[in-house]
Amino acid sequence: MNKTKYKVNAAIVIIGNEILSGRTQDVNVVHISKWLNELGVKLEEVRVIPDIENSIIKAINELKKKFNYVFTTGGIGPTHDDITSKSIAKAFNLSYGYHKEAYAILEEYYGKNKFNEGRKKMAMMPIKASLILNPSSGAPGFIVDNVYCLPGVPSILKSMLGGLKNKIKGGKKILTRTVSVQTVESEIAKPLEQVQRKFKKVEIGSYPFFRLGKIGVSMVIRSADKKKIDDCYKEIVNFLKRKKINMIGKK
Amino acid sequence: MNKTKYKVNAAIVIIGNEILSGRTQDVNVVHISKWLNELGVKLEEVRVIPDIENSIIKAINELKKKFNYVFTTGGIGPTHDDITSKSIAKAFNLSYGYHKEAYAILEEYYGKNKFNEGRKKMAMMPIKASLILNPSSGAPGFIVDNVYCLPGVPSILKSMLGGLKNKIKGGKKILTRTVSVQTVESEIAKPLEQVQRKFKKVEIGSYPFFRLGKIGVSMVIRSADKKKIDDCYKEIVNFLKRKKINMIGKK
Repeated sequence: MNKTKYKVNAAIVIIGNEILSGRTQDVNVVHISKWLNELGVKLEEVRVIPDIENSIIKAINELKKKFNYVFTTGGIGPTHDDITSKSIAKAFNLSYGYHKEAYAILEEYYGKNKFNEGRKKMAMMPIKASLILNPSSGAPGFIVDNVYCLPGVPSILKSMLGGLKNKIKGGKKILTRTVSVQTVESEIAKPLEQVQRKFKKVEIGSYPFFRLGKIGVSMVIRSADKKKIDDCYKEIVNFLKRKKINMIGKK
Repeated sequence: MNKTKYKVNAAIVIIGNEILSGRTQDVNVVHISKWLNELGVKLEEVRVIPDIENSIIKAINELKKKFNYVFTTGGIGPTHDDITSKSIAKAFNLSYGYHKEAYAILEEYYGKNKFNEGRKKMAMMPIKASLILNPSSGAPGFIVDNVYCLPGVPSILKSMLGGLKNKIKGGKKILTRTVSVQTVESEIAKPLEQVQRKFKKVEIGSYPFFRLGKIGVSMVIRSADKKKIDDCYKEIVNFLKRKKINMIGKK
Protein backbone atom coordinates (compact mmCIF):
# COMPACT_ATOMS: atom_id res chain seq x y z
CA MET A 1 0.00 0.00 0.00
CA ASN A 2 1.28 3.41 -0.88
CA LYS A 3 1.47 5.40 2.33
CA THR A 4 2.30 8.71 0.70
CA LYS A 5 -0.26 11.14 1.99
CA TYR A 6 -2.28 12.44 -0.92
CA LYS A 7 -2.74 15.93 0.32
CA VAL A 8 -0.27 17.90 2.38
CA ASN A 9 -1.01 21.61 2.60
CA ALA A 10 0.57 24.83 3.75
CA ALA A 11 -0.09 28.50 4.43
CA ILE A 12 2.22 31.51 4.27
CA VAL A 13 2.00 34.43 6.69
CA ILE A 14 3.76 37.54 5.41
CA ILE A 15 4.55 39.77 8.36
CA GLY A 16 5.11 43.06 6.68
CA ASN A 17 3.86 46.63 6.94
CA GLU A 18 6.01 47.32 3.87
CA ILE A 19 3.92 44.95 1.76
CA LEU A 20 0.61 46.35 3.06
CA SER A 21 1.71 49.93 2.45
CA GLY A 22 2.52 49.14 -1.18
CA ARG A 23 6.15 50.10 -0.68
CA THR A 24 7.47 46.61 -1.41
CA GLN A 25 6.34 44.10 -4.01
CA ASP A 26 6.26 40.64 -2.45
CA VAL A 27 8.05 38.01 -4.50
CA ASN A 28 8.44 35.36 -1.81
CA VAL A 29 5.03 33.75 -2.34
CA VAL A 30 5.82 32.69 -5.91
CA HIS A 31 9.18 31.32 -4.82
CA ILE A 32 7.94 29.38 -1.78
CA SER A 33 4.93 28.10 -3.69
CA LYS A 34 7.01 26.67 -6.55
CA TRP A 35 9.38 25.10 -4.03
CA LEU A 36 6.41 23.54 -2.21
CA ASN A 37 4.96 22.19 -5.48
CA GLU A 38 8.19 20.26 -5.98
CA LEU A 39 7.89 18.79 -2.49
CA GLY A 40 4.25 17.77 -2.98
CA VAL A 41 2.87 20.41 -0.63
CA LYS A 42 -0.05 22.52 -1.79
CA LEU A 43 -0.11 26.17 -0.78
CA GLU A 44 -3.72 26.86 0.19
CA GLU A 45 -3.68 30.26 1.86
CA VAL A 46 -1.54 33.37 2.15
CA ARG A 47 -2.08 36.18 4.63
CA VAL A 48 -0.31 39.50 4.73
CA ILE A 49 -0.60 41.01 8.19
CA PRO A 50 0.92 44.06 9.91
CA ASP A 51 3.86 44.08 12.35
CA ILE A 52 1.51 43.89 15.34
CA GLU A 53 1.99 41.23 18.00
CA ASN A 54 -1.68 40.37 18.42
CA SER A 55 -2.22 40.07 14.69
CA ILE A 56 0.70 37.65 14.42
CA ILE A 57 -0.39 35.54 17.39
CA LYS A 58 -3.97 35.32 16.09
CA ALA A 59 -2.96 34.38 12.54
CA ILE A 60 -0.46 31.76 13.72
CA ASN A 61 -2.84 30.15 16.19
CA GLU A 62 -5.53 29.89 13.55
CA LEU A 63 -3.38 28.66 10.67
CA LYS A 64 -1.15 26.18 12.52
CA LYS A 65 -4.22 24.09 13.27
CA LYS A 66 -5.64 24.34 9.78
CA PHE A 67 -2.55 23.50 7.71
CA ASN A 68 0.24 20.93 7.81
CA TYR A 69 2.87 23.63 7.46
CA VAL A 70 2.90 27.37 8.08
CA PHE A 71 5.72 29.54 6.76
CA THR A 72 6.23 33.07 8.00
CA THR A 73 8.32 35.64 6.18
CA GLY A 74 9.74 38.83 7.64
CA GLY A 75 10.30 40.35 11.05
CA ILE A 76 13.32 38.40 12.28
CA GLY A 77 15.94 41.14 11.91
CA PRO A 78 17.56 43.36 14.55
CA THR A 79 15.27 46.41 14.63
CA HIS A 80 12.29 47.34 16.83
CA ASP A 81 9.79 46.41 14.13
CA ASP A 82 11.12 42.83 14.00
CA ILE A 83 8.72 41.15 16.38
CA THR A 84 8.09 37.78 14.73
CA SER A 85 10.27 35.70 17.10
CA LYS A 86 8.73 37.14 20.25
CA SER A 87 5.21 36.80 18.86
CA ILE A 88 5.75 33.17 17.88
CA ALA A 89 7.05 32.41 21.38
CA LYS A 90 3.87 33.96 22.79
CA ALA A 91 1.63 32.11 20.33
CA PHE A 92 3.11 28.79 21.49
CA ASN A 93 3.48 29.89 25.12
CA LEU A 94 7.23 29.19 25.05
CA SER A 95 10.16 30.89 26.80
CA TYR A 96 11.72 33.64 24.71
CA GLY A 97 15.38 34.50 25.11
CA TYR A 98 18.84 33.89 23.72
CA HIS A 99 18.93 30.66 21.74
CA LYS A 100 22.30 29.08 22.59
CA GLU A 101 23.07 27.66 19.17
CA ALA A 102 21.85 30.78 17.34
CA TYR A 103 23.94 32.96 19.66
CA ALA A 104 27.05 30.88 18.94
CA ILE A 105 26.44 31.00 15.17
CA LEU A 106 25.99 34.78 15.16
CA GLU A 107 28.99 35.41 17.43
CA GLU A 108 31.12 33.32 15.13
CA TYR A 109 29.70 35.04 12.03
CA TYR A 110 30.23 38.64 13.18
CA GLY A 111 33.26 38.11 15.43
CA LYS A 112 33.16 38.84 19.17
CA ASN A 113 34.01 42.54 18.80
CA LYS A 114 31.31 43.32 16.27
CA PHE A 115 28.60 41.27 17.95
CA ASN A 116 26.62 44.27 19.18
CA GLU A 117 23.21 44.50 20.84
CA GLY A 118 21.28 44.69 17.58
CA ARG A 119 22.95 41.57 16.25
CA LYS A 120 22.46 39.75 19.54
CA LYS A 121 18.72 40.41 19.20
CA MET A 122 18.71 38.09 16.19
CA ALA A 123 19.65 35.24 18.57
CA MET A 124 16.50 35.88 20.60
CA MET A 125 13.69 33.49 19.81
CA PRO A 126 11.79 30.64 21.46
CA ILE A 127 14.76 29.04 23.25
CA LYS A 128 13.77 25.51 22.30
CA ALA A 129 13.22 26.22 18.59
CA SER A 130 15.09 24.25 15.91
CA LEU A 131 17.18 26.45 13.67
CA ILE A 132 16.99 27.02 9.93
CA LEU A 133 20.52 27.74 8.82
CA ASN A 134 21.30 30.82 6.77
CA PRO A 135 24.14 30.35 4.28
CA SER A 136 24.06 33.93 3.04
CA SER A 137 23.91 36.28 6.01
CA GLY A 138 24.37 34.39 9.26
CA ALA A 139 21.13 35.03 11.15
CA PRO A 140 19.16 31.78 11.30
CA GLY A 141 15.44 31.27 10.97
CA PHE A 142 13.67 28.82 13.24
CA ILE A 143 11.03 26.14 13.51
CA VAL A 144 8.46 25.68 16.27
CA ASP A 145 6.20 22.71 15.78
CA ASN A 146 4.79 23.12 12.23
CA VAL A 147 5.64 26.83 11.94
CA TYR A 148 8.73 27.77 9.92
CA CYS A 149 10.03 31.32 10.34
CA LEU A 150 12.00 32.80 7.47
CA PRO A 151 13.36 36.28 6.73
CA GLY A 152 11.67 38.71 4.35
CA VAL A 153 14.65 39.58 2.13
CA PRO A 154 14.06 37.39 -0.95
CA SER A 155 17.69 36.49 -1.72
CA ILE A 156 18.30 35.38 1.87
CA LEU A 157 15.03 33.50 2.05
CA LYS A 158 15.87 31.63 -1.16
CA SER A 159 19.28 30.61 0.17
CA MET A 160 17.66 29.14 3.28
CA LEU A 161 15.04 26.96 1.59
CA GLY A 162 17.65 24.54 0.26
CA GLY A 163 18.60 23.29 3.71
CA LEU A 164 14.97 22.98 4.71
CA LYS A 165 13.98 20.40 2.13
CA ASN A 166 14.59 17.37 4.33
CA LYS A 167 12.44 18.75 7.11
CA ILE A 168 9.30 18.85 4.98
CA LYS A 169 7.33 15.65 4.42
CA GLY A 170 5.35 16.28 1.29
CA GLY A 171 2.67 14.24 -0.37
CA LYS A 172 2.39 13.30 -4.00
CA LYS A 173 3.99 15.88 -6.25
CA ILE A 174 1.50 18.25 -7.82
CA LEU A 175 1.75 18.08 -11.62
CA THR A 176 0.73 20.71 -14.13
CA ARG A 177 -0.08 20.76 -17.83
CA THR A 178 -0.94 23.90 -19.75
CA VAL A 179 -2.68 24.49 -23.08
CA SER A 180 -2.65 28.01 -24.48
CA VAL A 181 -4.99 29.10 -27.23
CA GLN A 182 -5.58 32.12 -29.38
CA THR A 183 -9.13 32.95 -28.45
CA VAL A 184 -11.16 34.60 -25.72
CA GLU A 185 -12.41 32.87 -22.56
CA SER A 186 -16.08 33.02 -23.53
CA GLU A 187 -15.33 30.78 -26.56
CA ILE A 188 -14.00 27.94 -24.43
CA ALA A 189 -16.07 28.45 -21.25
CA LYS A 190 -18.76 25.89 -22.00
CA PRO A 191 -16.71 22.91 -23.24
CA LEU A 192 -14.10 23.56 -20.54
CA GLU A 193 -16.77 23.44 -17.87
CA GLN A 194 -17.89 20.08 -19.26
CA VAL A 195 -14.33 18.76 -18.96
CA GLN A 196 -14.14 20.06 -15.38
CA ARG A 197 -17.41 18.25 -14.55
CA LYS A 198 -16.01 15.01 -15.91
CA PHE A 199 -12.71 15.37 -14.00
CA LYS A 200 -13.93 16.61 -10.64
CA LYS A 201 -10.67 15.98 -8.80
CA VAL A 202 -8.52 17.80 -11.31
CA GLU A 203 -8.12 21.53 -10.85
CA ILE A 204 -8.64 23.36 -14.15
CA GLY A 205 -7.94 27.07 -14.29
CA SER A 206 -8.55 29.44 -17.18
CA TYR A 207 -6.40 32.55 -17.45
CA PRO A 208 -6.72 35.22 -20.14
CA PHE A 209 -3.54 36.92 -21.27
CA PHE A 210 -2.41 39.77 -23.52
CA ARG A 211 1.00 39.06 -24.98
CA LEU A 212 2.79 40.72 -27.87
CA GLY A 213 -0.46 42.34 -28.91
CA LYS A 214 -2.31 39.03 -28.97
CA ILE A 215 -5.22 37.99 -26.84
CA GLY A 216 -5.23 34.43 -25.58
CA VAL A 217 -6.19 32.03 -22.81
CA SER A 218 -4.08 29.54 -20.90
CA MET A 219 -5.84 26.51 -19.50
CA VAL A 220 -3.91 25.06 -16.59
CA ILE A 221 -4.57 21.53 -15.34
CA ARG A 222 -3.28 20.57 -11.88
CA SER A 223 -3.41 17.27 -10.05
CA ALA A 224 -1.16 14.77 -8.29
CA ASP A 225 -2.58 12.02 -10.54
CA LYS A 226 -0.65 11.81 -13.82
CA LYS A 227 -3.19 9.63 -15.60
CA LYS A 228 -6.07 11.97 -14.80
CA ILE A 229 -4.06 14.99 -15.92
CA ASP A 230 -3.22 13.33 -19.23
CA ASP A 231 -6.81 12.22 -19.85
CA CYS A 232 -8.10 15.67 -19.02
CA TYR A 233 -5.50 17.23 -21.30
CA LYS A 234 -6.63 15.00 -24.18
CA GLU A 235 -10.26 16.00 -23.72
CA ILE A 236 -9.31 19.66 -23.87
CA VAL A 237 -7.23 19.18 -27.01
CA ASN A 238 -10.14 17.28 -28.56
CA PHE A 239 -12.70 20.03 -28.04
CA LEU A 240 -10.20 22.61 -29.32
CA LYS A 241 -9.77 20.63 -32.54
CA ARG A 242 -13.50 20.16 -32.84
CA LYS A 243 -14.09 23.87 -32.44
CA LYS A 244 -11.11 24.71 -34.70
CA ILE A 245 -9.47 26.83 -32.00
CA ASN A 246 -5.82 27.57 -32.63
CA MET A 247 -3.39 26.15 -30.03
CA ILE A 248 -0.34 28.39 -29.58
CA GLY A 249 1.42 26.53 -26.85
CA LYS A 250 1.30 23.41 -24.75
CA LYS A 251 3.48 21.77 -22.13
CA MET B 1 -14.58 70.13 14.64
CA ASN B 2 -12.88 68.10 12.00
CA LYS B 3 -15.13 65.18 11.21
CA THR B 4 -12.64 63.36 8.99
CA LYS B 5 -12.33 59.90 10.45
CA TYR B 6 -8.77 59.33 11.52
CA LYS B 7 -8.57 55.72 10.62
CA VAL B 8 -10.34 54.05 7.74
CA ASN B 9 -9.07 50.59 6.91
CA ALA B 10 -9.38 47.92 4.24
CA ALA B 11 -8.57 44.34 3.38
CA ILE B 12 -7.94 42.67 0.03
CA VAL B 13 -9.07 39.14 -0.79
CA ILE B 14 -7.26 37.67 -3.77
CA ILE B 15 -9.34 34.85 -5.17
CA GLY B 16 -6.82 32.96 -7.18
CA ASN B 17 -5.51 29.42 -7.50
CA GLU B 18 -3.01 30.85 -10.00
CA ILE B 19 -1.42 32.99 -7.27
CA LEU B 20 -1.32 30.13 -4.76
CA SER B 21 0.21 27.74 -7.30
CA GLY B 22 3.04 30.17 -8.00
CA ARG B 23 2.05 30.44 -11.65
CA THR B 24 1.19 34.13 -11.46
CA GLN B 25 2.93 36.93 -9.60
CA ASP B 26 0.34 39.17 -7.96
CA VAL B 27 0.86 42.85 -8.67
CA ASN B 28 -2.58 44.11 -7.71
CA VAL B 29 -1.85 44.50 -3.99
CA VAL B 30 0.84 47.14 -4.57
CA HIS B 31 -1.43 48.99 -6.95
CA ILE B 32 -4.57 48.95 -4.79
CA SER B 33 -2.55 49.78 -1.67
CA LYS B 34 -0.96 52.88 -3.21
CA TRP B 35 -4.36 53.98 -4.50
CA LEU B 36 -5.84 53.52 -1.00
CA ASN B 37 -2.99 55.51 0.58
CA GLU B 38 -3.98 58.46 -1.58
CA LEU B 39 -7.58 58.14 -0.42
CA GLY B 40 -6.62 57.94 3.27
CA VAL B 41 -7.50 54.27 3.61
CA LYS B 42 -5.03 51.96 5.30
CA LEU B 43 -4.66 48.46 3.93
CA GLU B 44 -4.42 46.22 6.99
CA GLU B 45 -4.77 42.68 5.68
CA VAL B 46 -4.47 40.67 2.49
CA ARG B 47 -5.62 37.10 2.01
CA VAL B 48 -4.99 34.88 -0.94
CA ILE B 49 -7.54 32.08 -1.03
CA PRO B 50 -8.41 29.32 -3.51
CA ASP B 51 -11.31 29.30 -6.00
CA ILE B 52 -13.52 27.43 -3.54
CA GLU B 53 -16.98 28.74 -2.67
CA ASN B 54 -16.78 28.01 1.06
CA SER B 55 -13.37 29.63 1.37
CA ILE B 56 -14.65 32.79 -0.31
CA ILE B 57 -17.82 32.96 1.81
CA LYS B 58 -15.85 32.44 5.03
CA ALA B 59 -13.21 35.04 4.22
CA ILE B 60 -15.77 37.63 3.13
CA ASN B 61 -18.01 37.14 6.15
CA GLU B 62 -15.06 37.53 8.48
CA LEU B 63 -13.38 40.49 6.81
CA LYS B 64 -16.45 42.58 5.93
CA LYS B 65 -17.13 42.96 9.66
CA LYS B 66 -13.52 43.72 10.56
CA PHE B 67 -12.70 46.34 7.93
CA ASN B 68 -14.35 49.44 6.48
CA TYR B 69 -13.72 48.23 2.95
CA VAL B 70 -13.01 44.83 1.43
CA PHE B 71 -11.73 44.53 -2.13
CA THR B 72 -11.75 41.22 -3.95
CA THR B 73 -9.71 40.53 -7.06
CA GLY B 74 -10.27 37.72 -9.54
CA GLY B 75 -12.96 35.23 -10.40
CA ILE B 76 -15.47 37.42 -12.25
CA GLY B 77 -14.81 36.16 -15.77
CA PRO B 78 -16.86 33.78 -17.96
CA THR B 79 -15.31 30.37 -17.13
CA HIS B 80 -16.28 27.63 -14.65
CA ASP B 81 -13.54 28.69 -12.21
CA ASP B 82 -14.99 32.21 -11.94
CA ILE B 83 -17.14 31.81 -8.86
CA THR B 84 -16.68 35.11 -7.04
CA SER B 85 -20.06 36.64 -7.97
CA LYS B 86 -22.05 33.60 -6.92
CA SER B 87 -20.06 33.23 -3.69
CA ILE B 88 -20.56 36.89 -2.76
CA ALA B 89 -24.30 36.53 -3.34
CA LYS B 90 -24.30 33.53 -0.99
CA ALA B 91 -22.17 35.34 1.62
CA PHE B 92 -24.73 38.16 1.75
CA ASN B 93 -27.71 35.87 1.23
CA LEU B 94 -28.78 37.78 -1.88
CA SER B 95 -30.49 36.65 -5.08
CA TYR B 96 -28.02 35.73 -7.81
CA GLY B 97 -28.98 36.13 -11.45
CA TYR B 98 -28.77 38.41 -14.46
CA HIS B 99 -28.11 41.98 -13.34
CA LYS B 100 -30.24 44.13 -15.67
CA GLU B 101 -27.80 47.01 -16.06
CA ALA B 102 -24.76 44.73 -16.40
CA TYR B 103 -26.63 42.65 -19.01
CA ALA B 104 -27.44 45.79 -21.03
CA ILE B 105 -23.83 47.03 -20.83
CA LEU B 106 -22.42 43.70 -21.98
CA GLU B 107 -24.98 43.25 -24.77
CA GLU B 108 -24.12 46.71 -26.03
CA TYR B 109 -20.37 46.04 -25.71
CA TYR B 110 -20.31 42.74 -27.62
CA GLY B 111 -23.26 43.33 -29.93
CA LYS B 112 -26.36 41.13 -29.85
CA ASN B 113 -24.98 38.47 -32.18
CA LYS B 114 -21.77 37.90 -30.28
CA PHE B 115 -23.34 38.00 -26.83
CA ASN B 116 -22.93 34.26 -26.16
CA GLU B 117 -23.53 32.17 -23.03
CA GLY B 118 -20.02 32.71 -21.62
CA ARG B 119 -20.32 36.44 -21.97
CA LYS B 120 -23.81 36.46 -20.50
CA LYS B 121 -22.38 34.76 -17.40
CA MET B 122 -20.45 37.95 -16.69
CA ALA B 123 -23.81 39.71 -16.16
CA MET B 124 -24.69 37.23 -13.41
CA MET B 125 -24.12 38.59 -9.92
CA PRO B 126 -26.14 39.65 -6.88
CA ILE B 127 -29.02 41.28 -8.78
CA LYS B 128 -29.15 44.31 -6.50
CA ALA B 129 -25.41 45.03 -6.59
CA SER B 130 -24.09 48.44 -7.69
CA LEU B 131 -21.82 48.25 -10.69
CA ILE B 132 -18.17 49.24 -11.05
CA LEU B 133 -17.77 50.32 -14.65
CA ASN B 134 -15.03 48.83 -16.80
CA PRO B 135 -13.63 51.25 -19.38
CA SER B 136 -11.23 48.72 -20.89
CA SER B 137 -13.09 45.46 -21.49
CA GLY B 138 -16.79 45.89 -20.85
CA ALA B 139 -17.52 43.45 -18.04
CA PRO B 140 -18.31 45.43 -14.89
CA GLY B 141 -17.29 44.69 -11.33
CA PHE B 142 -19.77 45.22 -8.53
CA ILE B 143 -20.31 46.44 -4.99
CA VAL B 144 -22.35 44.81 -2.27
CA ASP B 145 -22.38 46.72 1.00
CA ASN B 146 -18.68 47.35 1.81
CA VAL B 147 -17.35 44.63 -0.52
CA TYR B 148 -15.93 45.76 -3.88
CA CYS B 149 -15.39 43.04 -6.47
CA LEU B 150 -12.75 43.66 -9.12
CA PRO B 151 -11.20 41.51 -11.85
CA GLY B 152 -7.78 39.85 -11.52
CA VAL B 153 -6.19 41.08 -14.75
CA PRO B 154 -4.01 43.99 -13.56
CA SER B 155 -4.50 46.33 -16.54
CA ILE B 156 -8.28 45.98 -16.35
CA LEU B 157 -8.33 46.37 -12.57
CA LYS B 158 -6.27 49.55 -12.83
CA SER B 159 -8.62 51.04 -15.40
CA MET B 160 -11.58 50.44 -13.08
CA LEU B 161 -10.18 52.06 -9.94
CA GLY B 162 -10.42 55.55 -11.42
CA GLY B 163 -14.21 55.51 -11.50
CA LEU B 164 -14.36 54.10 -7.98
CA LYS B 165 -12.66 56.99 -6.24
CA ASN B 166 -15.86 58.87 -5.37
CA LYS B 167 -17.39 55.80 -3.76
CA ILE B 168 -14.67 55.49 -1.12
CA LYS B 169 -14.81 57.73 1.93
CA GLY B 170 -11.28 57.80 3.22
CA GLY B 171 -9.80 59.30 6.36
CA LYS B 172 -6.79 61.52 6.66
CA LYS B 173 -4.24 60.83 3.96
CA ILE B 174 -1.40 58.61 5.13
CA LEU B 175 1.92 60.40 4.65
CA THR B 176 5.34 58.87 4.31
CA ARG B 177 8.90 60.07 4.70
CA THR B 178 11.93 57.92 4.05
CA VAL B 179 15.58 58.21 5.11
CA SER B 180 18.06 55.85 3.51
CA VAL B 181 21.49 55.26 4.98
CA GLN B 182 24.61 53.41 4.05
CA THR B 183 24.94 51.08 7.01
CA VAL B 184 23.50 47.86 8.41
CA GLU B 185 20.35 47.58 10.51
CA SER B 186 22.15 46.58 13.70
CA GLU B 187 23.94 49.98 13.72
CA ILE B 188 20.72 51.94 13.85
CA ALA B 189 18.51 49.49 15.77
CA LYS B 190 18.93 51.03 19.23
CA PRO B 191 18.54 54.76 18.48
CA LEU B 192 15.68 53.99 16.06
CA GLU B 193 13.88 52.06 18.77
CA GLN B 194 14.22 55.09 21.05
CA VAL B 195 12.65 57.30 18.39
CA GLN B 196 9.81 54.79 17.97
CA ARG B 197 9.21 54.84 21.75
CA LYS B 198 8.97 58.62 21.70
CA PHE B 199 6.58 58.65 18.72
CA LYS B 200 4.26 55.79 19.57
CA LYS B 201 1.58 56.71 17.03
CA VAL B 202 3.99 56.97 14.12
CA GLU B 203 4.78 53.76 12.26
CA ILE B 204 8.53 53.42 11.71
CA GLY B 205 9.77 50.58 9.53
CA SER B 206 13.36 49.57 8.89
CA TYR B 207 14.17 47.82 5.62
CA PRO B 208 17.61 46.58 4.58
CA PHE B 209 18.46 46.72 0.89
CA PHE B 210 21.21 45.66 -1.50
CA ARG B 211 21.45 48.05 -4.42
CA LEU B 212 24.21 48.49 -6.98
CA GLY B 213 26.51 46.43 -4.79
CA LYS B 214 25.85 48.59 -1.75
CA ILE B 215 24.27 47.57 1.51
CA GLY B 216 21.88 50.02 3.10
CA VAL B 217 18.79 50.55 5.20
CA SER B 218 15.68 52.58 4.48
CA MET B 219 13.78 53.93 7.45
CA VAL B 220 10.18 54.62 6.52
CA ILE B 221 7.99 56.85 8.68
CA ARG B 222 4.20 56.67 8.18
CA SER B 223 1.44 58.66 9.81
CA ALA B 224 -1.56 60.80 8.93
CA ASP B 225 -0.16 63.56 11.19
CA LYS B 226 2.29 65.74 9.24
CA LYS B 227 3.73 67.47 12.31
CA LYS B 228 4.51 64.15 14.02
CA ILE B 229 6.12 62.75 10.87
CA ASP B 230 8.32 65.83 10.52
CA ASP B 231 9.35 65.78 14.19
CA CYS B 232 10.12 62.08 14.00
CA TYR B 233 12.10 62.61 10.81
CA LYS B 234 14.21 65.29 12.52
CA GLU B 235 15.03 63.01 15.44
CA ILE B 236 16.21 60.32 13.06
CA VAL B 237 18.38 62.74 11.10
CA ASN B 238 19.81 63.98 14.40
CA PHE B 239 20.93 60.58 15.62
CA LEU B 240 22.36 59.77 12.21
CA LYS B 241 24.48 62.94 12.34
CA ARG B 242 25.52 62.18 15.92
CA LYS B 243 26.59 58.68 14.92
CA LYS B 244 28.19 59.94 11.69
CA ILE B 245 26.09 57.60 9.56
CA ASN B 246 26.02 58.52 5.89
CA MET B 247 22.60 59.45 4.51
CA ILE B 248 22.23 58.41 0.86
CA GLY B 249 18.70 59.51 0.24
CA LYS B 250 15.75 61.19 1.84
CA LYS B 251 12.29 62.24 0.75
